[in-house]
Amino acid sequence: MIVLRRHLGDELRRRRLAQGRTLREVSGSARVSLGYLSEVERGQKEPSSELLGAICGALDVPLSQLLRAVSDDIALAELAAGVVGPLDTPAPDGTPSPDVVAAA
Amino acid sequence: MIVLRRHLGDELRRRRLAQGRTLREVSGSARVSLGYLSEVERGQKEPSSELLGAICGALDVPLSQLLRAVSDDIALAELAAGVVGPLDTPAPDGTPSPDVVAAA
Repeated sequence: MIVLRRHLGDELRRRRLAQGRTLREVSGSARVSLGYLSEVERGQKEPSSELLGAICGALDVPLSQLLRAVSDDIALAELAAGVVGPLDTPAPDGTPSPDVVAAA
Repeated sequence: MIVLRRHLGDELRRRRLAQGRTLREVSGSARVSLGYLSEVERGQKEPSSELLGAICGALDVPLSQLLRAVSDDIALAELAAGVVGPLDTPAPDGTPSPDVVAAA
């Protein structure tokens, strides 16, 4: 099963590391505990919407951009798992479109 | 502040209503309580990743598609709130690019 918090945590960690910042710096800026941020990044804790907003603020990334990246990441995982993925218009009966089959 | 669970709840409700289904039907199919699903749709409860997956399954919508729609919705809210929105490359100093200003 695809678990949102794991993909979310991966993306948050990726963004933090791309900025060359430590857990301590980002957790301080977001006013969350270092242990909490670490658990969120490892997909072990579900961040509340408010804390996710604070972490995005600390990373200076709009929530919409974070979610789009997570959505893309999950679409790939869905393709790998055989779930209809990146297309917005699956056939009404749920059959993957030829494009999806070709990409899989 | 932009609160993810509200946009998520709106999108879940939109999808359910577009399918002409009741809270009772979808909650039964997702094996969550009707009251819980109702609270999630109204943005009052943070769904866990597992329960969000179950609700997506009941609605027959891939999680990636749901998140992309939520991301688009939040991008509009960010534009309205004056936060950099739909572009992936905001200026390093955080100034909205001319495109964003023109679109706002």
